[in-house]
Amino acid sequence: MIIDSHAHLVAPPAFYGYRANLLASGGYYKGNPGVTDEALAKSAATNVATMDSVGTDVQLLCPRPFHQMQSEKPDRVVHWWIEANNDLIARTVAMHPNRFAGVAGLPVCAGSPVTDALPELDRAVNELGFVGVSLNPDPYEGRGNSPTLDQEYWHPLWERMVELDVPALIHSSGCNSGRESYSEHFITEESIAVLTLLRGEVFTKFPGLRIIVSHGGGSVPYQIGRWQAEVLAPNLGGDPNNTRFEVQLRQLYFDTVLHNPLSLELLFKTVGADRCLFGTEKPGSGSAINPDTGASFDDLKPVIEAMDFLSQSDRDLIFEGNARSVFPRLKIDG
Amino acid sequence: MIIDSHAHLVAPPAFYGYRANLLASGGYYKGNPGVTDEALAKSAATNVATMDSVGTDVQLLCPRPFHQMQSEKPDRVVHWWIEANNDLIARTVAMHPNRFAGVAGLPVCAGSPVTDALPELDRAVNELGFVGVSLNPDPYEGRGNSPTLDQEYWHPLWERMVELDVPALIHSSGCNSGRESYSEHFITEESIAVLTLLRGEVFTKFPGLRIIVSHGGGSVPYQIGRWQAEVLAPNLGGDPNNTRFEVQLRQLYFDTVLHNPLSLELLFKTVGADRCLFGTEKPGSGSAINPDTGASFDDLKPVIEAMDFLSQSDRDLIFEGNARSVFPRLKIDG
Amino acid sequence: MIIDSHAHLVAPPAFYGYRANLLASGGYYKGNPGVTDEALAKSAATNVATMDSVGTDVQLLCPRPFHQMQSEKPDRVVHWWIEANNDLIARTVAMHPNRFAGVAGLPVCAGSPVTDALPELDRAVNELGFVGVSLNPDPYEGRGNSPTLDQEYWHPLWERMVELDVPALIHSSGCNSGRESYSEHFITEESIAVLTLLRGEVFTKFPGLRIIVSHGGGSVPYQIGRWQAEVLAPNLGGDPNNTRFEVQLRQLYFDTVLHNPLSLELLFKTVGADRCLFGTEKPGSGSAINPDTGASFDDLKPVIEAMDFLSQSDRDLIFEGNARSVFPRLKIDG
Amino acid sequence: MIIDSHAHLVAPPAFYGYRANLLASGGYYKGNPGVTDEALAKSAATNVATMDSVGTDVQLLCPRPFHQMQSEKPDRVVHWWIEANNDLIARTVAMHPNRFAGVAGLPVCAGSPVTDALPELDRAVNELGFVGVSLNPDPYEGRGNSPTLDQEYWHPLWERMVELDVPALIHSSGCNSGRESYSEHFITEESIAVLTLLRGEVFTKFPGLRIIVSHGGGSVPYQIGRWQAEVLAPNLGGDPNNTRFEVQLRQLYFDTVLHNPLSLELLFKTVGADRCLFGTEKPGSGSAINPDTGASFDDLKPVIEAMDFLSQSDRDLIFEGNARSVFPRLKIDG
Amino acid sequence: MIIDSHAHLVAPPAFYGYRANLLASGGYYKGNPGVTDEALAKSAATNVATMDSVGTDVQLLCPRPFHQMQSEKPDRVVHWWIEANNDLIARTVAMHPNRFAGVAGLPVCAGSPVTDALPELDRAVNELGFVGVSLNPDPYEGRGNSPTLDQEYWHPLWERMVELDVPALIHSSGCNSGRESYSEHFITEESIAVLTLLRGEVFTKFPGLRIIVSHGGGSVPYQIGRWQAEVLAPNLGGDPNNTRFEVQLRQLYFDTVLHNPLSLELLFKTVGADRCLFGTEKPGSGSAINPDTGASFDDLKPVIEAMDFLSQSDRDLIFEGNARSVFPRLKIDG
Amino acid sequence: MIIDSHAHLVAPPAFYGYRANLLASGGYYKGNPGVTDEALAKSAATNVATMDSVGTDVQLLCPRPFHQMQSEKPDRVVHWWIEANNDLIARTVAMHPNRFAGVAGLPVCAGSPVTDALPELDRAVNELGFVGVSLNPDPYEGRGNSPTLDQEYWHPLWERMVELDVPALIHSSGCNSGRESYSEHFITEESIAVLTLLRGEVFTKFPGLRIIVSHGGGSVPYQIGRWQAEVLAPNLGGDPNNTRFEVQLRQLYFDTVLHNPLSLELLFKTVGADRCLFGTEKPGSGSAINPDTGASFDDLKPVIEAMDFLSQSDRDLIFEGNARSVFPRLKIDG
Repeated sequence: MIIDSHAHLVAPPAFYGYRANLLASGGYYKGNPGVTDEALAKSAATNVATMDSVGTDVQLLCPRPFHQMQSEKPDRVVHWWIEANNDLIARTVAMHPNRFAGVAGLPVCAGSPVTDALPELDRAVNELGFVGVSLNPDPYEGRGNSPTLDQEYWHPLWERMVELDVPALIHSSGCNSGRESYSEHFITEESIAVLTLLRGEVFTKFPGLRIIVSHGGGSVPYQIGRWQAEVLAPNLGGDPNNTRFEVQLRQLYFDTVLHNPLSLELLFKTVGADRCLFGTEKPGSGSAINPDTGASFDDLKPVIEAMDFLSQSDRDLIFEGNARSVFPRLKIDG
Repeated sequence: MIIDSHAHLVAPPAFYGYRANLLASGGYYKGNPGVTDEALAKSAATNVATMDSVGTDVQLLCPRPFHQMQSEKPDRVVHWWIEANNDLIARTVAMHPNRFAGVAGLPVCAGSPVTDALPELDRAVNELGFVGVSLNPDPYEGRGNSPTLDQEYWHPLWERMVELDVPALIHSSGCNSGRESYSEHFITEESIAVLTLLRGEVFTKFPGLRIIVSHGGGSVPYQIGRWQAEVLAPNLGGDPNNTRFEVQLRQLYFDTVLHNPLSLELLFKTVGADRCLFGTEKPGSGSAINPDTGASFDDLKPVIEAMDFLSQSDRDLIFEGNARSVFPRLKIDG
Repeated sequence: MIIDSHAHLVAPPAFYGYRANLLASGGYYKGNPGVTDEALAKSAATNVATMDSVGTDVQLLCPRPFHQMQSEKPDRVVHWWIEANNDLIARTVAMHPNRFAGVAGLPVCAGSPVTDALPELDRAVNELGFVGVSLNPDPYEGRGNSPTLDQEYWHPLWERMVELDVPALIHSSGCNSGRESYSEHFITEESIAVLTLLRGEVFTKFPGLRIIVSHGGGSVPYQIGRWQAEVLAPNLGGDPNNTRFEVQLRQLYFDTVLHNPLSLELLFKTVGADRCLFGTEKPGSGSAINPDTGASFDDLKPVIEAMDFLSQSDRDLIFEGNARSVFPRLKIDG
Repeated sequence: MIIDSHAHLVAPPAFYGYRANLLASGGYYKGNPGVTDEALAKSAATNVATMDSVGTDVQLLCPRPFHQMQSEKPDRVVHWWIEANNDLIARTVAMHPNRFAGVAGLPVCAGSPVTDALPELDRAVNELGFVGVSLNPDPYEGRGNSPTLDQEYWHPLWERMVELDVPALIHSSGCNSGRESYSEHFITEESIAVLTLLRGEVFTKFPGLRIIVSHGGGSVPYQIGRWQAEVLAPNLGGDPNNTRFEVQLRQLYFDTVLHNPLSLELLFKTVGADRCLFGTEKPGSGSAINPDTGASFDDLKPVIEAMDFLSQSDRDLIFEGNARSVFPRLKIDG
Repeated sequence: MIIDSHAHLVAPPAFYGYRANLLASGGYYKGNPGVTDEALAKSAATNVATMDSVGTDVQLLCPRPFHQMQSEKPDRVVHWWIEANNDLIARTVAMHPNRFAGVAGLPVCAGSPVTDALPELDRAVNELGFVGVSLNPDPYEGRGNSPTLDQEYWHPLWERMVELDVPALIHSSGCNSGRESYSEHFITEESIAVLTLLRGEVFTKFPGLRIIVSHGGGSVPYQIGRWQAEVLAPNLGGDPNNTRFEVQLRQLYFDTVLHNPLSLELLFKTVGADRCLFGTEKPGSGSAINPDTGASFDDLKPVIEAMDFLSQSDRDLIFEGNARSVFPRLKIDG
Repeated sequence: MIIDSHAHLVAPPAFYGYRANLLASGGYYKGNPGVTDEALAKSAATNVATMDSVGTDVQLLCPRPFHQMQSEKPDRVVHWWIEANNDLIARTVAMHPNRFAGVAGLPVCAGSPVTDALPELDRAVNELGFVGVSLNPDPYEGRGNSPTLDQEYWHPLWERMVELDVPALIHSSGCNSGRESYSEHFITEESIAVLTLLRGEVFTKFPGLRIIVSHGGGSVPYQIGRWQAEVLAPNLGGDPNNTRFEVQLRQLYFDTVLHNPLSLELLFKTVGADRCLFGTEKPGSGSAINPDTGASFDDLKPVIEAMDFLSQSDRDLIFEGNARSVFPRLKIDG
């Protein structure tokens, strides 16, 4: 079975019209997303067709990250919007229960305690049957004040995730810095997420926590030499007796949303096949056609199948096995 | 000949005491670096010995980037400090004219026009005989307001660099964001530099401009699939008829400061050997001993020599030829 | 003929999905509104049917004000959005050229010079055939720094409007103050617009300028006693020889979007029928059914027709004549 | 008996010299208001003469609102000043106990808890014998951060007012926004006060609370059609089953400080005579002579007496009865 | 003849009531100071009596500094107030032309160019006959951004003062820092004024400029050892060949408002009798009775007369001669 | 015995290189000061030689104040640096236990509670054997927000100092205001410290507290007439029955770091010899050679010995006795 662990809700355009209304209304009028079953069925069917075209059996759907707007005010606008996303995902899953499962957006709002997001986490898992969460590590969306993932700010979330036995897919949202597009900011935030998680004590304090880093871990696998050396260098705060960086790195999981064979090879060889989950977010960042191959950049299944240095067991882990371990609440049979 | 294009001044500790004095004095007292010839000769000799130990013939020396403090106020403190760095580099070069050449720091100050830095650029090239510049693309040092490299802010600098026929090594300085260490910020800023340079019209307007991106280009070569697809995707602002990203990328040069064989392989195969300059910044970020090899992470000459997929001509370009082309003012004979 | 001078584009929901995309994309991807002719024809037809149901012959369409987002950054997001609105209005007008005419949104962006909006003003009038503009007097959208209408900031706009012979409908946009909904802010900004225009020298410097204030002039007609007294009171900066406030007030025009008979009566008696333009913005703020009448609050034609104190000539001015004078570019025959 | 419920202390000019001293001294020197009995007697006599000239029997005196300066720092300057105002009112009342009663200013300071003002409220009612309070709903004075009246911030004040059985006259103070004069800001703040009080749960939680809105309720009675429709419109956050806006509005009281017959008529017909209190704040905003009548704009008694649509019982309520109900601590016999 | 070069307008309290009105009105209503000739004559007579009681023949009157409010906004409030002060001083001088002369307040407004103050300077000298100016070196009043006196900001003022041949008395105004009272801030600002004037090139560029520093020069004469050493110390930016600090200091003038014999002795011996002007600002900071002497602290004439180390010529300079030189426009005969 | 109570660590230049590293590293790498015993012994010997040259027996060493950087972020950088200073002082004392004693720097960080500094206070006294503390009253270093010494913020520190029986030497650190050099800011902050301590209730609440003000008390002894009068003047917040200022002032101690005989004379005569501690901070602010004497400005022992108005007992107190009382933990025998 091929499980795409990094996929996003495909919603009718009107759903984003609702988002525009929420923002323009400034939190005074909640209104209604107004997505009919008919419109949703149509967009869901399109998605299933896309999956079929590349051989994906199951997609784990979370909200479109760059639309999550966790830095907008007042907070209730964010809550309403994230809830509407999770509701729409749940309706989509209900239409195709063997092809989709839900990964919840979380209303972690810039400047507010993370505990504000826990009721929606509970609702998504316990009422809507979701199997994981999508987590934006930068609720300020590029304005620079978000607490890094090693800080105490996040502890209540880690604790609840462990209790509910759900993992988080790290994926930032919008970017208002004026220096990066949201897409470029994704990579920056994933790098910060990896490095701050590893230098803190998160995995010591929350041993049951499972974190997947999107897009192959940002810059970290490529820049690993830098961090391997630093961990061991006394003049840079390291120690020759420290746990080596490449070992620390394997506390995390990574998806394969890299759209490039050489990069995937680097990823698998650096973190190991047992830490990688198949992901394409198709349709999404890689759906353009690669003129060299005639296939889309995000058609990664044949790419991975063609890699000689991977064993069949490696491929099974990447395509399905790791997702089964990391998302134990996922119950779709193979 | 082995030319290390990315190396930093090794100064006696008292030199940084001078930096501390400048900052503490708030720009009221300029004082004097107070580095004696004797002390400098000692540190220069140490550096030469390090070079000899790994087979480097020539190092291109620029100031220690993380000490550049371009966001400190008043501006004159930055000017005094950068000038003192360039002076010390010039004295070091004068002690070993066949082993070192100077790459100038630039006093581009947060919130001030880039033209303020041009007199020091002129002095460094015309009076001190420097062959290139080190350029911090984020003078605000992580506080978020620096103009990106595609903006008009930088045009006067590009113009003067072309006139003087010197390249820039992109390398950020400190980081005060509270979310990244300066070292992590290097990677972020290099990625932003590459992506903003390519989406702007800098190379169209300044065709003679030469830019080297430190540390193998940040995250970009690893994340290239993302940008290849985006450039061609109409829904992401792209166009199937656009120049492909991997071609655009070859407008830039990259150094090899990656400290990891797999990453170097990815870099060479992605951007081509003719765009890569040997660099180790030894002693620096990679000088810890790799327990697996017993050599330091930054001992990259044997790593590159051992790569079968490179031709001898490729290696010659990486070790020397590209540096000769990019730094035409470099006059040390082989 | 019944001309509704204050009406807004009725667009398919997907159009606002485009707005959401623009915002989330941070100005990096312009994208495409993606409104098909079919979808637009459907929404236009709905609008025409609404007009028919209440006897409106012509509507002057401007963008939905609360969606105008002039305080969003970067500016190009605002420009793209306003242009898309004007384009969609033009397409709607083209579908029903005897029932609609265009009133342009203007990309006056918070913190940027008003001259940035003039190219779009020119395009709307000269290329798209629009007959007036909708003007948000608070581009900062409730954050408090917008220059008031008596300040020099606005002069280039007044000048160009006079040259093009088009009037402005004053209508604010969103509100981010946290103290008012956008709807409440409309009233506040209309009051500020009236009072600042009258205390400045705008009409002396731009004698050909024509300004219509939405929603019956905010609070001003109701609070007129306060301003009548102030204008004449030396201890409040007035002078008994000043032009009386009620005379000054008649330099402006007002629409009838008040949804309440007593308020309309106060308006007509205070400013005169020759300064009032029929407006309902139907469907809009007053479309709820009034349980007392069974008609919608914004079904104002019968309300005005029933007012004994108005002459037939008064009614003709309100329903059509004043609009003809104020919008001389309006060419739909009666 | 004619009770003017909205009147302000007439103080000798030197009293405001004290205010200037407090501000200039920055809170370091408290000093002394220095108003002699002789000077105060003179100004009080002037006030009584003014009352006699228009047939007012009793005035309820509160501090001059635009001088209240609740946004000045440090807070102690505000406390000293408000206390001095209340003291001076008490002295004035003592001089003419049958003509005046006190309505207390409150030192609610921008950014400080409302509880800081409660000791002065207690002192004014229990020690000075005051019968109500004047409440500035915008302690930040136009700088935009004041909590609206529906927020919990204000609960301790509502609670104490109910315990003491005193009402509040809503009346804002200065304005530093640069967009409105203090006088224009009064109207804006009254509108915000009405709308936020009605959309919150204040009257449900504090059923004994009595609030009078100055100047005829800002813009709300005139713009009522807008709010009537919104309350019933589902797409604007309303519901056809909601309590109708005009009913909600009658939870509040309003004064007659409108200076214009048509506006008074609109007010009485909209909220009902039983919710209106006679007020003129004479001498004040309406004391200029109306050239059309030869009387001052604020000579409202004959205006109201001439209104045919009011019954005698209505007039009695407006002139006296409502004030008796709303200010039960007022003990002056008719 | 005894000339008190540092004295302030004694105005009726109502004048400061006008100041309060200006501030509260936010610049919307200019109003009128409302000081009658009768009231002014009374306060002027009081002042003359005070002068007679201590033997002062002439006072040079400037506005009360701590009331100058140069940091208030909008600027026009400051202009109106300073102009009103200068007008009142001119009226006072006109009442007693042989006892008073005018020293003008200047509307140098925080954040605005100093040239804005020049029209009032011209008016004061050319129309009102004033002989000098009072200069607040900290228009931001303790909020920290005022340009120091060595900066170019002040050049237009120096230039005009030289043209008009008038000196400036350095005297700061209010203080909003929360760390100092306005009175304590006077001393701080005088110290900063002395030190910045001496380290800049003001007296080189404007050789005809004459500056008197209030209150005996702040802390500088007492702390002179520190600055004498610094000027000569290379490691503190000095040079043994520099002009010695005590010589530089004599480019300035100082008044005697120190209220303490030992301090006056230190001042005279440090800067020389030829640089000191008799000043008491009586009635003012020193008017309390000294229990040890039974005289007020500011009764300085007998204190100076009793100093043996001064020659008669020294005393003549202090009491009259230096004032004659520094204020050449002063024409009162002895 | 001659005890210099105000002296600073003389450290090798490399120690300040460590400071530069800490700042540039942004708190990510603690590193190591790297001061060898050999280098420290050399600088300590230089210091002893300096003491011998002017007859000083003992110096109480605290960190160089202008390097203390309490406003830098993150706080841990400040803590690491202050701890390193105290460690280096302890090592210096250990090398010359009869010539030096330690006075601790305190990591009071801008914006953080003073209690954060108490562990280092405890360590310095209990583990390192220090005898007092050096206290910067302006942790914001000229940016304007530091709580003054009369505020509750400081109470936990006063309490612990009393428990440990150690005094504080008031001495500010750097200055970032752009208006004063750090050296000028010292004088400003000492003046503020004196005046705020005296107007608050610190000595009433902490009767055992001992405070020494550096540099002869800033401006206060020279400006004493001003404060003597204010304390007694009702219109300035005083009272004729108040404790006189000169008596209040004697609750504090002062050092003699004035470098000028006349100023020292003023100090001794104003506060009394029993409140003055010999201090020179040699080598430091006064070490330049006075061309008039041929001695350095800070060679104060002969200056004081030559003062006729002091008794031998006075001199003993100044040179040793007062230090013994104020620093009871100082155990070096005479």
